[in-house]
Amino acid sequence: MGLKFSIPYQIPFYETDITHHVKLPHLLAFSLQVSGMQSESLGNTDKDVFDNYGLVWIVTDYAIEIDRLPRYNEKVTITTEAISYNKIFCYRNFYITDEAGQQIMLFKTTFALMDYETRKVAEVPDEVVAPYGADKIKKLLRGPRYKTLENPLEILYRVRYFDLDMNGHVNNSKYLEWMLDVFDLDFLTEYTPAHIDLKYVKEIHHGSKIYSGYEFDQGSLSSQHQICVDGNVHAQAIIQWKEIGDE
Amino acid sequence: MGLKFSIPYQIPFYETDITHHVKLPHLLAFSLQVSGMQSESLGNTDKDVFDNYGLVWIVTDYAIEIDRLPRYNEKVTITTEAISYNKIFCYRNFYITDEAGQQIMLFKTTFALMDYETRKVAEVPDEVVAPYGADKIKKLLRGPRYKTLENPLEILYRVRYFDLDMNGHVNNSKYLEWMLDVFDLDFLTEYTPAHIDLKYVKEIHHGSKIYSGYEFDQGSLSSQHQICVDGNVHAQAIIQWKEIGDE
Repeated sequence: MGLKFSIPYQIPFYETDITHHVKLPHLLAFSLQVSGMQSESLGNTDKDVFDNYGLVWIVTDYAIEIDRLPRYNEKVTITTEAISYNKIFCYRNFYITDEAGQQIMLFKTTFALMDYETRKVAEVPDEVVAPYGADKIKKLLRGPRYKTLENPLEILYRVRYFDLDMNGHVNNSKYLEWMLDVFDLDFLTEYTPAHIDLKYVKEIHHGSKIYSGYEFDQGSLSSQHQICVDGNVHAQAIIQWKEIGDE
Repeated sequence: MGLKFSIPYQIPFYETDITHHVKLPHLLAFSLQVSGMQSESLGNTDKDVFDNYGLVWIVTDYAIEIDRLPRYNEKVTITTEAISYNKIFCYRNFYITDEAGQQIMLFKTTFALMDYETRKVAEVPDEVVAPYGADKIKKLLRGPRYKTLENPLEILYRVRYFDLDMNGHVNNSKYLEWMLDVFDLDFLTEYTPAHIDLKYVKEIHHGSKIYSGYEFDQGSLSSQHQICVDGNVHAQAIIQWKEIGDE
């Protein structure tokens, strides 16, 4: 277990959806910001890592547990903690707690370092992660097995200019937008994710045509998703849904 | 001139674009958040206005002056000031200043109050705006004259779930995304808006097909824009561009 770092956050108007809850892709994006703030507080900024090693942090996997999504204007605390790391991957948790200190969401994330020039994953230099105090482990933690979808329903998306971030590719919070947007408005106002497993396979660039495909199983209230470009899978997810009233 | 209210803001990673500058639609959305925070600090929240009058604040016009867009991680201050109001409109400025206190952007905005049930603009109750200390004026401030475009280039957009906000319609920052996204990547990495006039005409709902149309004049480096649904204009803009290197 490593150092913890917390930031208070009040859910802004423009990041809430029609159900008055926070937009989940925004909360993922903001959480990465919080880990960046921890790095800054430890004098170990992303810029240092880039300047010294030519490496940039990327997220490869999320396992997201949602008891409930925070609502408009609600004050929550986002706490991040570096859990452990091995030769390739760094495991980091984000805990979202409400004003009473009750945990309402948990994001388990896997980070890796990408060589900015070659766009390939690099070994983790011990000294880059030393400031976070996490344990080095031998084990590779495995996510779920994602199957390739056989008869997905697919919706076409074009990459928009504002989908891109500073790294020159689509920001990873956008993948989840494409995955959730395939459902109709009635479904998204009645159901909310209870658990999401999400795996990033390949980056996506401007001008790409994205097929956001999914299969939904009404019996188990679960859906499987894939984001494809030119027939290649760039991201996969499994979502377990629940009724919003259940929270 | 009315009360001023300031919030410091550091530009987050996920709201910067490929040129490393802040995404302008995000900064507009965040500024509205700052005026909401001022209302809260004065004990005059949006919720109070809704509960007591059934009214919600909407923005009808922007005049945006950009010396330069703030960059990733830059610390700026956003100051809002209620300037004046008349029977229908409230005029409010937002000043973005850099760490040296230099003003780098100015948003002149026009707000109105919409009856949530009838979706029509309502008269401004004096007591709703009294806390901001702005002068009541008789004059209606006029924006530029927008012409209907005769032969626009048009790109089709579908409204996505996450384009909607808590008011159940498309968040107004999205209109600007559709207007700017029509340009190609090369143009958007070489040129940046110096001045934008933007007028909202009608709200947009989920399921709508949006045509973002524009005409660009290379000689004057200016573009005119309209957002249409079913042949009706829902928003219009005029943008004056400059080379990014000029800033």
